[in-house]
Amino acid sequence: MSRKKENETPAKTPINSKKAAGDRLAKTRLLGIAEMLYSQFENETVPSVSLPSRTKTNLEYSNSSDVWVYGDRESERSAKTVKGAFQLLKTTYATDFLLKEHLAQNRGSTLRELYYISEGWDAAKFKEQAESDRLIEDLELLTRLQREFFHMRPEEDGATLFGPLKICEQTKRGERTIHCQKDVGEGGYQIPFNVENIEFKAHDASMVLAIETGGMYARLIENGFDEKYNAILVHLKGQPARSTRRIIKRINEELAIPVAVFTDGDPWSYRIFASVAYGAIKSAHLSEYMATPQAKFLGLQPSDIVEYELATDKLTEQDISALRSELADPRFESGYWKDQIELQLSIGKKAEQQAFAGKGLDFVTEVYLPNRLKEVELL
Amino acid sequence: MSRKKENETPAKTPINSKKAAGDRLAKTRLLGIAEMLYSQFENETVPSVSLPSRTKTNLEYSNSSDVWVYGDRESERSAKTVKGAFQLLKTTYATDFLLKEHLAQNRGSTLRELYYISEGWDAAKFKEQAESDRLIEDLELLTRLQREFFHMRPEEDGATLFGPLKICEQTKRGERTIHCQKDVGEGGYQIPFNVENIEFKAHDASMVLAIETGGMYARLIENGFDEKYNAILVHLKGQPARSTRRIIKRINEELAIPVAVFTDGDPWSYRIFASVAYGAIKSAHLSEYMATPQAKFLGLQPSDIVEYELATDKLTEQDISALRSELADPRFESGYWKDQIELQLSIGKKAEQQAFAGKGLDFVTEVYLPNRLKEVELL
Repeated sequence: MSRKKENETPAKTPINSKKAAGDRLAKTRLLGIAEMLYSQFENETVPSVSLPSRTKTNLEYSNSSDVWVYGDRESERSAKTVKGAFQLLKTTYATDFLLKEHLAQNRGSTLRELYYISEGWDAAKFKEQAESDRLIEDLELLTRLQREFFHMRPEEDGATLFGPLKICEQTKRGERTIHCQKDVGEGGYQIPFNVENIEFKAHDASMVLAIETGGMYARLIENGFDEKYNAILVHLKGQPARSTRRIIKRINEELAIPVAVFTDGDPWSYRIFASVAYGAIKSAHLSEYMATPQAKFLGLQPSDIVEYELATDKLTEQDISALRSELADPRFESGYWKDQIELQLSIGKKAEQQAFAGKGLDFVTEVYLPNRLKEVELL
Repeated sequence: MSRKKENETPAKTPINSKKAAGDRLAKTRLLGIAEMLYSQFENETVPSVSLPSRTKTNLEYSNSSDVWVYGDRESERSAKTVKGAFQLLKTTYATDFLLKEHLAQNRGSTLRELYYISEGWDAAKFKEQAESDRLIEDLELLTRLQREFFHMRPEEDGATLFGPLKICEQTKRGERTIHCQKDVGEGGYQIPFNVENIEFKAHDASMVLAIETGGMYARLIENGFDEKYNAILVHLKGQPARSTRRIIKRINEELAIPVAVFTDGDPWSYRIFASVAYGAIKSAHLSEYMATPQAKFLGLQPSDIVEYELATDKLTEQDISALRSELADPRFESGYWKDQIELQLSIGKKAEQQAFAGKGLDFVTEVYLPNRLKEVELL
């Protein structure tokens, strides 16, 4: 076991003043929307706002941040049409609610609650939750801030983290300092919905290993992988939540710790990797906050299925068309992915990460992962 | 805020010796299966085991424990048939694995891993995971122990708990003492898969409130409901995992703290309540360990939809037939449930617990829950 001295990561700003600064920024930007609309009225122009168009064809590669972001194409919400006028009305109601109920009172609500809250808004009431969810995305684009800054919560989180990292979380009940190996149970540290409220205090980690399934996460904890390799284990729980992607990004960026991703070997899992590394099309405006372009894909690779003769399932029709669509996805545009995906299409098989259990409970931590980590130069 | 002095709950047995005793019991009972088969061979009888039949028609109400358990009907696995012989072969392989790999080495694996592990078992290999899952249930019935005693893990957990309870968890890295309000972040304490490894150290709680959705759980934490009412909040995450039901049962039984359940107002949510209170048909052999018959249903009740004029959705065809089947379910055999279900069928509507947000963010904690808690005599 190679143990270096724990790295102290002294904060430039205390976590509570960082939170206050975030709240101030959100207030200013949300008020900015109201001011813009107000001055349009004052200047006798028809009120409108412009937003980037959120389509696959408007995705562009940003060389500065190494992620896919929205391009220049814009769509307009203007009071020239009845539909646009209603959208602007809802925007002002939502902005007012976030300013007065959330930020002024240090409270929050879920996306689902927001939909119900609008019942009292008369003509500005949302018809369905998809509409209020989309409006919050609009506000993210208009303010260039994530919804967590407005204290909007998702319905469920639940991802956990386990490893040599000491954090301080600013909670509504005060600050909580937690070592994510020594102060937590076997389930690990529960990642909160807003990871901006976390300050990294110290660590002893040389990598983050993000894992798709709970079974494999528990396997790595049981086998002591976090201790032997000084790894921070993050359970992705399938397609990862925003908070999970954001904390991985923050650890990578602020603590300069490399990230590796370990998933099942099927097209849906490659998308899980892609959303960690490059972001999702649906939320490309957040890629710069959430994506970790340096993240390495460990596996399970189609070539592993062949090399280790793993137990497999047959690819379904849906799997095959998902693989084909990945061949055209800009995020998989590399010789490596082309080879792996074409190999998988030719063998017609997929495998799960837990299939390594067929070779004994230690194979994955003693043989497979060390080999792959060497191949991607993280060991 | 009514705060009584924190109750100390001194352990009769230290948690690590309790764990050792559990392991010894599991070893003895598993060896008992092998001994039984061995003596059948020795006595020149065809080897066989008898198990309770796991069907709805074999459910019986146990007056002693107030839950539904399996009745006397049995089915036999006998080596008289090829199918039965294979089942017994798999039983011995699995028993051997649990004894030598799990219990002797203090390790564990997931149900999914067990399925893959059987690849090395030649003729005893499982054809699909349903088969190995069922075999573990057989072993639970044969040993009268829960699978957690054999160190079998589920694929995913993730339920959390937040409130005035101090626990000590026996982990593979040593003991961890955690106060579930003061030592955890806003996400709460992550319930481990085996809650037998938890010892209750002290508490200041007058109730457990089990909540279906993450949004409502976060709402109650934000509104300080746990502090004001000395409530241990448990997030059920939909249909609750075994570990979630077991920890609720243990808190209720060992600390004599009453339990209330707060879900959405639809037939699927009533089943969530029923599985907390009375157990599930699929695992009736575990009801005595997992069910909390004293648990009270708070809501959301169909009568609340009418009384509070909540935002609703129309019942679907599936909802309607689920409600009808509940009218015939022994777990809902009471005047209260008959009235509520018939009311719901007549209004044709359902509502979510977060619908209370339409009346303001504090309505649920300031008005609805206190009223309901008084009605069920928990306040």
